[in-house]
This record gives sequence, structure tokens and C-alpha cells, in this order.
Amino acid sequence: MDSAGARGPAAHPPLKVALLGSGTVGSQVYRLLTEQSADLQARAGAPLQVVGVAVDDPAKQREIPVAPGLLTTDGLELVTRPDVDIVIELIGGIEPARTLLLAALKAGKSVITANKALVAADRAVLHRTAQEAGVDLYYEGAVAGAIPLLRPLRESLAGDDVRRVIGIVNGTTNFILDRMDTSGADFSAALAEAQALGYAEADPTADVAGFDAAAKAAILASIAFHTEVTADDVYREGILSVTSADIASARSLGLVVKLLAICERCNGGITARVHPAMIPRVHPLAAVRDAYNAVFVEAESAGRLMFYGAGAGGQPTASAVLGDTVAVARNLQAGLRGPDSSTYAGLPLVPIGDAITRYYVQLDVADRPGVLAPVADAFAQNGVSIKDVRQEGRGDDANLIIMTHSAREAALAKTVSVLSAMEAVRNVDSVMRVEGVEGE
Amino acid sequence: MDSAGARGPAAHPPLKVALLGSGTVGSQVYRLLTEQSADLQARAGAPLQVVGVAVDDPAKQREIPVAPGLLTTDGLELVTRPDVDIVIELIGGIEPARTLLLAALKAGKSVITANKALVAADRAVLHRTAQEAGVDLYYEGAVAGAIPLLRPLRESLAGDDVRRVIGIVNGTTNFILDRMDTSGADFSAALAEAQALGYAEADPTADVAGFDAAAKAAILASIAFHTEVTADDVYREGILSVTSADIASARSLGLVVKLLAICERCNGGITARVHPAMIPRVHPLAAVRDAYNAVFVEAESAGRLMFYGAGAGGQPTASAVLGDTVAVARNLQAGLRGPDSSTYAGLPLVPIGDAITRYYVQLDVADRPGVLAPVADAFAQNGVSIKDVRQEGRGDDANLIIMTHSAREAALAKTVSVLSAMEAVRNVDSVMRVEGVEGE
Repeated sequence: MDSAGARGPAAHPPLKVALLGSGTVGSQVYRLLTEQSADLQARAGAPLQVVGVAVDDPAKQREIPVAPGLLTTDGLELVTRPDVDIVIELIGGIEPARTLLLAALKAGKSVITANKALVAADRAVLHRTAQEAGVDLYYEGAVAGAIPLLRPLRESLAGDDVRRVIGIVNGTTNFILDRMDTSGADFSAALAEAQALGYAEADPTADVAGFDAAAKAAILASIAFHTEVTADDVYREGILSVTSADIASARSLGLVVKLLAICERCNGGITARVHPAMIPRVHPLAAVRDAYNAVFVEAESAGRLMFYGAGAGGQPTASAVLGDTVAVARNLQAGLRGPDSSTYAGLPLVPIGDAITRYYVQLDVADRPGVLAPVADAFAQNGVSIKDVRQEGRGDDANLIIMTHSAREAALAKTVSVLSAMEAVRNVDSVMRVEGVEGE
Repeated sequence: MDSAGARGPAAHPPLKVALLGSGTVGSQVYRLLTEQSADLQARAGAPLQVVGVAVDDPAKQREIPVAPGLLTTDGLELVTRPDVDIVIELIGGIEPARTLLLAALKAGKSVITANKALVAADRAVLHRTAQEAGVDLYYEGAVAGAIPLLRPLRESLAGDDVRRVIGIVNGTTNFILDRMDTSGADFSAALAEAQALGYAEADPTADVAGFDAAAKAAILASIAFHTEVTADDVYREGILSVTSADIASARSLGLVVKLLAICERCNGGITARVHPAMIPRVHPLAAVRDAYNAVFVEAESAGRLMFYGAGAGGQPTASAVLGDTVAVARNLQAGLRGPDSSTYAGLPLVPIGDAITRYYVQLDVADRPGVLAPVADAFAQNGVSIKDVRQEGRGDDANLIIMTHSAREAALAKTVSVLSAMEAVRNVDSVMRVEGVEGE
């Protein structure tokens, strides 16, 4: 499409773009802004011209070289330069990104970022600053990489009521759990493979402890429920406690273990939580393999929707960032702003103890008659209804697997503490939530 | 969320909505505009007030009753009424919808429609009229019901280059093919079941002959490739020729038969085609069951994306229509229009003979030595490379199944005509395209 520009709308003066960061995503955004300039101009209505790239070390060798003269170490100077129209932030983390973006917004620049940590922590102040300055703030790339998700939730579903969002939003942990499921590897071996393939960092804490997914859950919950939710509001468990035995047990029950971000309506409020859970193998999310992401949305009128794609990586995230950039460019030329963040609903966050879901409980019990009755009684006394029990003898011990109906978290926790204290129960080997089950 | 409105933005005078049609979708849109008015007001920034509903027969009993005084049979008077701001068209078909919408646009009303036939036939003139009148034209509900698809393609992927769109966009035919696959039913039995369940019309031609899917393919191709494509440009084959034997054969090869809408870049242009095809059972589209829809998008930077959900039905389509309605309402208050249809690329439509894909060919041949050589030669002479051959004897006859590598349609057609004329080939039982295979 060499001649694309020639057939585009009448020439508009270039919109000037400042890039913060030139890492995995930043370098791809720079490359595409350069290589696809004719197409981007035709779609945006104006040329998009990179006028500066802020980096820590201008001398560093770059796979995708930046044109001489564009590199700077002074991000603050760059984002407040009078000629800059659009700031794209791809450095990540809270600081200095926060300071730079607030300065950019206050200086009247429209901002695009893929920084989930910052948006999940400071969405409210960023939106307020953008609104006061009359500029745009977009961050489609912050959640699930290339998958168009925030725009559909905010705009396409603006006339619907979202009931529940369940997402696989962290590719690293999905890769690890998928490997544990398919190859029987334990957590350490699967993590090592993920690291060797570049899916996991040397320090994998942000991923495996669920911090990354919790940030994304906060952003999804905010938009889906028109309510301000920060990462700190999200209940969080990582996948460190998931064992090969859990995964094998799930498999034998027709289930698979995934790290899920769940945001749902509950008791007139909402819950936002990230934790490993077993889901039925027939659930659409069960088929999400490797490092892919997918988000399942249930809405009153739309019913069940799913969005699937690459959740990370330089090029996929760059696609989302450039989609936002074209939207901002169109808005700038029309002299307007895109839809604001709507938080009119202001729903209360329900504490995790009041969340309602189903549970898998695995007990190591003495293999003798009469053990099941007191165990069943412990559930009943706490108002937790049992759906299925499976008992497998193994010498002196027996393995007791109990699947519950829907119950309050607090009631299940109480049940587990009673079970732990029972003489007949040698150990509570595993407790895991079960999600995505139809009906009751 | 009773108090939603109270926490919304400052009061704006109501935006007045005219509804055309009160059928499956229209009645749900009317219901939601009424029942969800506080939430819709908070999100749209202004109350949305239905001021008229045009129907054929005002005396008809309606499951969802329309407030007295709103019903009219004079659609033209309604859509040109000076107080109307937004026209929502849900009557379907080309006329009178076309006349009414052109009149509405010319009278300065913003238009939302879910009418795929009309948009696929007259997208260009509708968009031109909207542009000249300075009003909006949205039609998310026209393709794949509730699934947010057109907005993500047009906006989220505006900075990317779409390589291919492969969709299951007709629920009726997906239901029929799924039943044939899972229960072994033949086409007639599966169609009868679809009709009994309300998934297929008494006259199922629009669905089973592929007209509905072709209209949607035209709309998808137009948006994905920034090129005007009409339903007449789309190559179309329905599912009437798909036999139980084809489906069983696909199953034995690890494939499944789906009716696909395919729009892809090809030889510097694009192809748009609708036909049954075999896809690998591991492909994400293979898992799309019953009457669900899903659209798979491959883009240069974003990679592989999939959008999944309910493709039809009153409530799901109403969700899409209301999402568009909120967008239009926001635009009206800001005094602006949403993004226009971009057709700057103007790519040529490649004729079906130049399309490139893989093929499944099933031959009834004499079961004697020396048959395979001339058959293989027919493929080779026409430049079609064979990937796999499977031969099964059955008495005097043998069943020869040939899977090809990628080849031009015209070359495959030539091969089939040569095979048909061969003495050793008793019959060419089946030829079907194979899509969604990785690599070559």
C-alpha cells in the first residue's frame, strides 16, 4: 500500500509524538510509526511524527535504531516541549512514569500508556488530570496486550450491564500452568522453561505472585463496573502453592487449573480477586494455551463473550498502543476528547470473605470406616453444601476429594479450620476455588 | 443501581429516539431503553427518550408492550420529525429500510442499524449521506450480534494491518453443522432441529445458502481492509452440498466442517468468500459450538485474535445497538461525529479463481493397482502439490482422499475437471477447502 497516503484525506500538519522508553514495546512502536507512516496518516488524518525518544542510556546498541538527534535522557523536558501533541509512555513501573505523565497531561499533551502498574494504582488522579487539562488518556495496551478489551468494555458494552469478567490476563503464569498440565512438570521445572523461552523474568515475582494480574483486574473492574478500583482493592493469591498433585487431581475431575482475574457483581457490590482456580475443561477459557490471554465477559443482554489473543510482547502491545494513538490523533483534529472514565456507579468492594464460589478440598484422612460422617458434618455445620465426594484408599491413609456447591468464602474458611483440627483428618492437602461451572 | 442517575453528570435535555421496528430486536431495545434509563443516562450523559415506534400493525399483541401513543405506521414521518435526534432501525431488509434511513440521515438524524443486508448492499451511499449531513452512522449489531467486532476492527486495530479475518458469522448454519458433527444427523434432520428450536427460519435460504454470511463478510472486509466491498463482491457457497460423509471424513482426519466467512490479503488485493471448509479441530474456531459466532483476526502486529459470543437473538443484538446508541448520544452532546468509514486503501477484489487455499478431494476409484499414479499426475500437471493421500478399499471400489498443499482455486478446479474425465475415477465425491492450517 505504497500510495496509501496519496489517497488519504487532505494534508493536516503533522501531530508530534514524544516516546518515553525504547524497550520491547517502545522500539516496536517507534518502528511502526516510521514504517507504516503512510497508512497511519491515512487513518489518523494527519502525519504522526516522532520528535523525541526518552531513554536512560542513549549510547546503548538498539536492535531498532532510533534516528540521530531524537534520543534524549530528559523525559520531563521532552513531554513538556511546546511542540509535542501526544506522549506515549512505555517505560512501565510507578516512577518516573507517574511524574512524567502528570506533567505531560498538565502541559496539555494527550497521553497513551501501556503501564498497568501505574494505571491500576493511580487511574483516578490520571483521569482527573486529563479531564482538567482537556486532553485524552488511553491505555488499551495495559491489559491483555493486543486484545481489544478496554474499548469494547467501555464503548461497545456501554448500553449493557456486565455481570462478570473472568480473565486469563498473565501469559507467564498461563504458560507455567499449561506446561504443568500437559507435561506433568512441577512448578520449578515449568518456571525454568518459561524463563528459558523469555516468557518469565529472572525475578518472576510480579507474575507468579499475581501482582501483574491484580493490576489488570483492577483496571478491568473499574471499567466494567463504572467504579474506581485500585490494585490494592484486589484480593490476590499467586500460583506458588499450586502443586503437580493439584493439577493431576483437577485433570482426573475434568478440570484444569488456571490463574484467573475475576471481577463480578456480588451482594449489591463487586468482588475483584486473582487466584488459581479449577475450571471445567469444556469452558472456553480452558482452551487458552501457552502464554495466550483471554477474557470472558458475561453481560445481561450480550450474554457470554470472549476475547482472545496475545497478552504481551513488543509487537502485540504496540498494536494496541497505535490503535489508541490513531484515536487520539483523530480527536485532536476534531478538537475533542474521547469518552471519559465513568465511575458514576461507585459500587462497594465486597470483602473476600463475602465472595461466593465453589471449592475443591482435598484431605488426607485415616482409611477407616466412619471418617466421612464427621467430615461431612463439618461442612454442614458451616453451611457449605457438598456436591461430590470421592475417596481413594492408599494404605493407612485415604485421599478424600470434596467438591462443594456455591458457598461464602468465610464459611469455607471456617470449615477448613474445623477440618484441620479434626483427629481423623491428617492433613488438609489442598483447597482451591472452582470457577466457570454452569448452573448450581 | 437505583441512584445511578443521581450520581451522573449534570442534567442535559433528553435526546429523542425514534425506533423503526418492534420485532425480536426492536422490542428488546425498547425494553432496555425504558428499564435501564438511569444507567443509560449516566453513561450517555443525557436521558434517552423514545418518542415513537414505527410498526406495520399497531393493533398486534406485543410481548413487551409499547407505551400508548408511541406507535405509528408512518415511519417516514417519524424519522423526519424535527424533535427526533437518533433513529434506530431494526426492521431489516433493503426496503423500506433504505428509503427511511436515507431520509433520516438527510434530515440530520444520527442513525443506528443492525441491518446487515442493507449495510452490505449500500454502505457507501449510507456513509456518504451521513458525512454530508454531518451525522453518525453505526451498525455494530449488523455483524455477529453482541460480539464487539466492528469497533475493535475500526478503532482498536487502526494502527495495525489486518492480514486475514476468518469468521463463523451465521449461527443457524453453525448449529446445523455442529449437530451433523456431534450426532451424525444428516442435513435435513439437523435443519429440522434448528427450525424446531427457533434457530432457523421456515424458509432457511438466507442462512443455508450463505447470503447472510456473505453480507457480513462484505462489512468485515470493508472495515478490515479500508476498502469498499459489497455483498455482490463476495464469493458464496452455502452448506446444502455438505454431506454426512464429508463430516465423518473430516472427523477421521482431525478436522471439522464449518461455514466460514474469509476475507484476506491475496496478491496485492483481497479475497472475500463464504463457503463450507474443513478446519483443524485444534483451531480456536473449531470449538465454536451450537449457534455461537466467533471471528478470528490475524494482524501484522497484534498476531492472532479471536472474538466470541452470541451472534444473533433479540437481547444480544440489542446490547450492540445500545452500545452504539450511547456512543451517538455522547457524540451529539460533544457536537461531533464518530470515526468515518475509511476506504482509502481501495484494494482490488481478487477473483475466486486466484484465491489460494488448501483442498480436500475425495474420489471414488476402481480398486486396482496403478490407479494412484495417473491421479497424482493430474494434480502435478496442474501445479497442485499433494500433501497426503489415504486410500481405503471397499470391494470393487476404493475411496481415495487427497489433501493438497496451498494452491490456486483455478488450478484445483482444472485438476478436478481432469480427474472427472479419467477412466479410473468413477466419481469425484467431494471437494472442500481446508482453512486454518498453520505453516505450509
